[in-house]
Amino acid sequence: MIVIKVGGSEGIDLAAVCRDVAALWKEGQRLVLVHGGSHRTNEVATLLGHPPQFVTSVSGFTSRRTDRETLRIFEMVYCGEVNKGIVEMLQAEGANAIGLSGLDGRLLEGTRKEAIKIIENGRRRVLRDDYTGTVERVNIGLLNLLLDHGYLPVVTPPAISTNHEAINVDGDRAAAMIATAMGAEALIILSNVPGLLRQFPDESTLIRHIDPQRVEEAMAHAEGRMKMKVLGAIEALQQGVGKVIFGDGRIEHPVRAALAGQGTVIG
Amino acid sequence: MIVIKVGGSEGIDLAAVCRDVAALWKEGQRLVLVHGGSHRTNEVATLLGHPPQFVTSVSGFTSRRTDRETLRIFEMVYCGEVNKGIVEMLQAEGANAIGLSGLDGRLLEGTRKEAIKIIENGRRRVLRDDYTGTVERVNIGLLNLLLDHGYLPVVTPPAISTNHEAINVDGDRAAAMIATAMGAEALIILSNVPGLLRQFPDESTLIRHIDPQRVEEAMAHAEGRMKMKVLGAIEALQQGVGKVIFGDGRIEHPVRAALAGQGTVIG
Repeated sequence: MIVIKVGGSEGIDLAAVCRDVAALWKEGQRLVLVHGGSHRTNEVATLLGHPPQFVTSVSGFTSRRTDRETLRIFEMVYCGEVNKGIVEMLQAEGANAIGLSGLDGRLLEGTRKEAIKIIENGRRRVLRDDYTGTVERVNIGLLNLLLDHGYLPVVTPPAISTNHEAINVDGDRAAAMIATAMGAEALIILSNVPGLLRQFPDESTLIRHIDPQRVEEAMAHAEGRMKMKVLGAIEALQQGVGKVIFGDGRIEHPVRAALAGQGTVIG
Repeated sequence: MIVIKVGGSEGIDLAAVCRDVAALWKEGQRLVLVHGGSHRTNEVATLLGHPPQFVTSVSGFTSRRTDRETLRIFEMVYCGEVNKGIVEMLQAEGANAIGLSGLDGRLLEGTRKEAIKIIENGRRRVLRDDYTGTVERVNIGLLNLLLDHGYLPVVTPPAISTNHEAINVDGDRAAAMIATAMGAEALIILSNVPGLLRQFPDESTLIRHIDPQRVEEAMAHAEGRMKMKVLGAIEALQQGVGKVIFGDGRIEHPVRAALAGQGTVIG
């Protein structure tokens, strides 16, 4: 069992990811594909007159400001355009994919943050109308039901809150939760860089291996969105996932390359 | 087993539909909900600078001009905004809904029309870059798998072609195909009128009952999009569905009202 997360940043070759995923699937590899859609959401939100905003929490994490209108656009892109585009490509490659958001069958359940403490122009502020949260429970019964019957699950945020609201959750950490809950041998996180970089964005500073005992040191190297990725990796390793690989989503055979050790291997 | 189709036209009260569907579901009624999204697709397509176009076939049916860009917007609205909005509302009402397009698990499979003969400004023309078709096969294995495990399927176009392309299909006829394949006792089609009208749009001319032996006569009364609805009803009745009811989707308890005989009952 492996979990593959492909990001939604510019430069990622989704068609190549789908070809590779479908080929592995047809060889009998049990897997779940998780995807993002951030770059395209920014474009569509701008076109629809509700441009994206990002907030930085007091603990230094950057996340999308998700009011109810943003959530609607988020669902259009993640669950509509991107998810169905991936399902169509996988179907064309002969893998019987089913796209699901975290709302569907309460696949990804979590708690909505009632209040988000952010830093804005150097000052603290509290947001109370934001729909974000963290995945706490994965409906593995549903994933196993589909896998056992020959379907390839393609999973996307949003998740569903314990209070039944759609909530924006970080895709990397959702993938890490799925890998943990499914007891995956490997979690592969594909983005638009070759892996974890010592000096972002200098690709020649790729970190090839991180000792799981010293993974927190890696957090020192992580910047911006990469912080979330490393946080997800730590969580997954601590809870029994065999290894986490940060791979390059811009190349041909991105999953096989990552499984062969290209990128940053933690574990 | 009943199949409920709720249209995507203006005026339909989706929240009321979801309350009614969830209540029936919790009473143990086995059901599949199918939905549209046409009105909202028109709005979003216009906002995104790709305004909707409609074409009339030589046989007199009106349908959405679906080039590849329209298909993408169609998926954003039907599979993203509308489908996930409905799933969220059903979850809030305590029904464990799962949203699926026809692409997912090849739920709705059909043939793409290679060429569409249309009438434009009084002249015949052939479209070859349109992604439309008709549902020919329903993956009832997937629907029964989900139903047997306590999930309420919420189904939306597009379908998938035999050549693995997403295709725009008429939602009413897709619902009729699902009802037929599932051997449903009833197919309920909710729209923004009280039922089939003798003189559209005069709601006082509601036809209360149509004899299934004389259903083709009803086609004479059907206009525009209603033609598709009647065509779907004929297909479903001919293939064993118990009855078809055209009900009002603007009222409270729209499904119970239809089941109680309000609207146009055929069968």
